[in-house]
Amino acid sequence: MNVVYLSGGVGGAKLLDGLAEIIPAGELTAVVNTGDDFVHWGLTICPDLDTVMYNLAGLSDPGQGWGIVGDTFTAYERMSRISGPQWFQLGDQDLATHIYRTKAMADGATLSQATSQLMQGNGIDHRILPMSDDWRQTVFLMTDGRELLFNEWFVRERTPRGIESIGYQGDSQPAPAVVPAVEAADLVIIGPSNPYVSIDTILSLDGVRDAVSHKPVVAVSPIVGGQAVKGPLAWMLPLLDRRDPSPAAIVDHYGGIVDAIVVETGDSAGLGVPTLESATIMGNRDDRVRLAGEIMNWAGQLV
Amino acid sequence: MNVVYLSGGVGGAKLLDGLAEIIPAGELTAVVNTGDDFVHWGLTICPDLDTVMYNLAGLSDPGQGWGIVGDTFTAYERMSRISGPQWFQLGDQDLATHIYRTKAMADGATLSQATSQLMQGNGIDHRILPMSDDWRQTVFLMTDGRELLFNEWFVRERTPRGIESIGYQGDSQPAPAVVPAVEAADLVIIGPSNPYVSIDTILSLDGVRDAVSHKPVVAVSPIVGGQAVKGPLAWMLPLLDRRDPSPAAIVDHYGGIVDAIVVETGDSAGLGVPTLESATIMGNRDDRVRLAGEIMNWAGQLV
Repeated sequence: MNVVYLSGGVGGAKLLDGLAEIIPAGELTAVVNTGDDFVHWGLTICPDLDTVMYNLAGLSDPGQGWGIVGDTFTAYERMSRISGPQWFQLGDQDLATHIYRTKAMADGATLSQATSQLMQGNGIDHRILPMSDDWRQTVFLMTDGRELLFNEWFVRERTPRGIESIGYQGDSQPAPAVVPAVEAADLVIIGPSNPYVSIDTILSLDGVRDAVSHKPVVAVSPIVGGQAVKGPLAWMLPLLDRRDPSPAAIVDHYGGIVDAIVVETGDSAGLGVPTLESATIMGNRDDRVRLAGEIMNWAGQLV
Repeated sequence: MNVVYLSGGVGGAKLLDGLAEIIPAGELTAVVNTGDDFVHWGLTICPDLDTVMYNLAGLSDPGQGWGIVGDTFTAYERMSRISGPQWFQLGDQDLATHIYRTKAMADGATLSQATSQLMQGNGIDHRILPMSDDWRQTVFLMTDGRELLFNEWFVRERTPRGIESIGYQGDSQPAPAVVPAVEAADLVIIGPSNPYVSIDTILSLDGVRDAVSHKPVVAVSPIVGGQAVKGPLAWMLPLLDRRDPSPAAIVDHYGGIVDAIVVETGDSAGLGVPTLESATIMGNRDDRVRLAGEIMNWAGQLV
């Protein structure tokens, strides 16, 4: 069964790690959000791709899910001494990734090619695609009139709530392999990522929503017990969709493309699509693999 | 007394550190070789400027004279795992320097400006100039016909002896402040650097040798007891100048621009210029300051 998995960062990466454990390399393609990519210290940084990579390579703390476990911040501390306080912290091991990518792209590689090289260099056999090879940025239009890029909003300003709307800047072309991968898929899984800043960004690219809408789609709810597992989603749903945070709000948010949903045990109330209840918080690697297995067993009956 | 100091890396940087201790900031300008600058991992690396900076900032091991003492190699080790063996080792703290410089220059700074910012960021008040703002490379034409850039010859291939000749590639313009600094100087000191790969490279730039030749020039011998203090100079003099390694060979190599020389105690035989004998090996920081003081006291009588 060919599976395409749409992913943001932490939550999406954890479940992908579980899926990668049980789906053979040739049958799983991940399409990863790049709307929060940015250039820092002159280096091209792709937070979600890197989070995916570190999770699949076994480099991240399985509970925390981001960064490289035990990474040091020597270069960062020295940079702070040279040029003052830095708003974005980069680990020393993490730096090697950004330096590699920046150089590969300066030498002419596309982001898809650089990503493929990095995944290979980290021993990852599954196909991991950036959603786009072009600069496509998630932009927050704030009620005070400012436009903030994702990391300005998320990291520098720590998720201020005065959001007027969320949009995109830049080229809307998906990476070359994205739409063909969806078209070749038997199943699309939408990871437990933030719809606004991870999944919508992927779906906004030319042809992607349309291709996904023709496939069986299982979403995994990022809302558990009325709360977001991580991040600002719990207050974004009331603000931007005027809905209480719930799996039903997630299904409705995706506007008809979701055919089935995986929710936390006890969370299935009010859902009009087939639902799998499970323990969806992935505290360790066993949780990832178990949840991935349950989803794949269940989805096999849906396809 | 205004002093201009011509410097390569390690030996030159140690004595400069001593001079900077005793000469006020407004009266000392260092002009530093950039003929071995190179781009690695997409980062612009200036080995001699960095060695000077780390010595003046008290960051280098005073005996060793290069790198940042206690630096770690976390990013380097990770890069080796991603993309295989690396021929050039970069420390984590050192990386911050190269990242800062590369970004500053990508944002439009000249190398002179980026250097000034880095020196300031490292608490260095003395004026440190790169010899050139342009790409000017020391090139080894080898007897097997290959052309090697400095770091290919020095680091990657570990100083092979089959040198046919040494030349330069790239723009021959000195950095804007270099010739004016020499013209405003009361004294030029040539550090105990390798003439072929450090000092000649500076002197080869348009107008520099001519400007230096009009000033009192004191050289500090990099040859001590018939040996090079560090590096391949002891066998380069017989090969390229057909001279045994001695202070006299150094004076003659510079072709009449040197008016006086500082040599190791016992090394003054055969010299036709005023000579100061001293303990010139700088094993610790006190040695640097003591030697600098002796040179300045003596040079005061020559000017």
